[in-house]
Amino acid sequence: MPPMRHFITAEEAKPPLFVGIDLGGTNIKFGAVDDLGRSLAWLSIPTEVQRGPEDAAVRMGAAVREVVAKAGVKPSAIARVGFGSAGPANIPGGIITNAANLKGWNNFPIRDRVSYHSGLPVTFENDANAAAYGEFWIGSAHGFRSMVLLTLGTGIGVGIVIGDVVVRGENSCGGESGHMVIDFHDNARPCGCGHRGHLEAYASATAVIQRTAEALAGGRRSTLADEIAAGEELTPKLVAIEAAAGDELSLEMVFETARYIAIGAVSLMHMIGPEGVFLGGAMTFGGPQSALGCRFLATIRQEVRRLALPGFADRTAIEFATLGGDAGYIGAAGVARLEHMQQARK
Amino acid sequence: MPPMRHFITAEEAKPPLFVGIDLGGTNIKFGAVDDLGRSLAWLSIPTEVQRGPEDAAVRMGAAVREVVAKAGVKPSAIARVGFGSAGPANIPGGIITNAANLKGWNNFPIRDRVSYHSGLPVTFENDANAAAYGEFWIGSAHGFRSMVLLTLGTGIGVGIVIGDVVVRGENSCGGESGHMVIDFHDNARPCGCGHRGHLEAYASATAVIQRTAEALAGGRRSTLADEIAAGEELTPKLVAIEAAAGDELSLEMVFETARYIAIGAVSLMHMIGPEGVFLGGAMTFGGPQSALGCRFLATIRQEVRRLALPGFADRTAIEFATLGGDAGYIGAAGVARLEHMQQARK
Repeated sequence: MPPMRHFITAEEAKPPLFVGIDLGGTNIKFGAVDDLGRSLAWLSIPTEVQRGPEDAAVRMGAAVREVVAKAGVKPSAIARVGFGSAGPANIPGGIITNAANLKGWNNFPIRDRVSYHSGLPVTFENDANAAAYGEFWIGSAHGFRSMVLLTLGTGIGVGIVIGDVVVRGENSCGGESGHMVIDFHDNARPCGCGHRGHLEAYASATAVIQRTAEALAGGRRSTLADEIAAGEELTPKLVAIEAAAGDELSLEMVFETARYIAIGAVSLMHMIGPEGVFLGGAMTFGGPQSALGCRFLATIRQEVRRLALPGFADRTAIEFATLGGDAGYIGAAGVARLEHMQQARK
Repeated sequence: MPPMRHFITAEEAKPPLFVGIDLGGTNIKFGAVDDLGRSLAWLSIPTEVQRGPEDAAVRMGAAVREVVAKAGVKPSAIARVGFGSAGPANIPGGIITNAANLKGWNNFPIRDRVSYHSGLPVTFENDANAAAYGEFWIGSAHGFRSMVLLTLGTGIGVGIVIGDVVVRGENSCGGESGHMVIDFHDNARPCGCGHRGHLEAYASATAVIQRTAEALAGGRRSTLADEIAAGEELTPKLVAIEAAAGDELSLEMVFETARYIAIGAVSLMHMIGPEGVFLGGAMTFGGPQSALGCRFLATIRQEVRRLALPGFADRTAIEFATLGGDAGYIGAAGVARLEHMQQARK
């Protein structure tokens, strides 16, 4: 789906310009972005993981040229490319190390190959960090001094930005806060990573599906059962639809998820003290445009107030992210811009 | 107890010099520290909380002059004072806001009053952060790019340093990571802060005493029971002594505590990715000098390896802190030095 955002013209753009790339397991998004974070053009190509990383690097090089042409600017106007990659990754090395949804791409020098095929210097970043930086730069956290973005999807990505610096960590894996322990007991829910009790094992889309399936298998009555019997797939979206229609189990799942997210948010708040915690990704139960999404957010805020130390809840904004699927490529362009400025200072 | 460290002479000192203050509920420590973090002199005075903060500020001003005289340098050689305070605090405001062990000191402008009585500019910092910065500057984490210090005592203080920057958070409370949630269930252990399931409720000295007392009350056999019957107080130190002598319950408490600390360390590692996690404070079951302390550390490392995502455990050092009770005043001097350098650049 193309982004909903406003595009500026080549004449309106403030140089230097950047191209941001957002690499996911299904699609790769490209955007030409100006020095103020405004988009000039956008396009998306299928990832086609099975064709391998070199094939993708060739196609990414072509797509960079295409989005630059679409933006109506000369290739020489692009100072740098930012590449936000599904992780885990070795960020300084520009290498994907262990990405579940990019099978066969491990240990391939993707940054350098995209640089080769695009003819441009490339800044490599983890996708959760890139999205967080995008929201920090021009989105929901614009004007904030520090922020955390929780990207709720199949997993939970967490990006942390403190004072224009993306917290990457020495392990260069970017934020793996989705794997914070919220239940240390041996019988805690298993996480996709093989361990137990991680936030992601409770509050990701995968976890919502599992928790709901367990409740249904346990004999809970729900209109979800009818929908599934009629051939619908059990997804957070279906849970949101049934919850909005008043189904009790679905509502319970939404609010329980809100509670888990609040627990993760409170731990992040106590550790890092960000000015704001933002919620993005596909699994926001309708987000700010829906009554259910607003109740989901209200429940998170209420639980945060209940669980946080004095002073923390009052001083920490908890909001939906606003850039949606554009956060990744905009933020990738943003980190490229940071590196460009840093190099210019040298 | 005076520090074990080596003191340099006034002639050996590299200017500018700083005075670090470490304010605790029982004692206030003062040290004169040179530009390389080396101590010239040290002294300690009782806090005498009940005499109130203005009285303490007067005595602190005098103690600053005394430690400078003891260092054998002129008062004019001191560029700045660093003040590490028990928290929570409003760091930019230089005010203690809610410290449990400094009753009656809340909302008093302690930084400015110490500055007034010492005649020197004062940099205010939370004590957990100051200790972390001390270890980062010249202690166990010297040469590291980022680190986390867990100070294990009555509570758990956590200081985070990333690239010479102390992570203070927007709430200016410093690190409150001791209040990360490691068990979200309603029946989780109560924390001193009034909530449940926080790391501090499992792994602080207070928690060790409570967990041990519960086990004894539950009828567990232990030489601890004999010691307590003979008039000994149940403390982590007593648990360490009995554990070292082979008492099963005591050993269990030590290793269980190691497991809880590992859970907290893993969450911090996944979130922040520090190059090292360091353990300081009074409650390290003997620390590096004892066989039990070494087993305690080995258990933490083993549990971290078991619980962390691939790559994290191998790349993160887990070590005892080395500055002991000096970390606070040295780190306070260190943050004063940072502010001094920042002001000099302006």
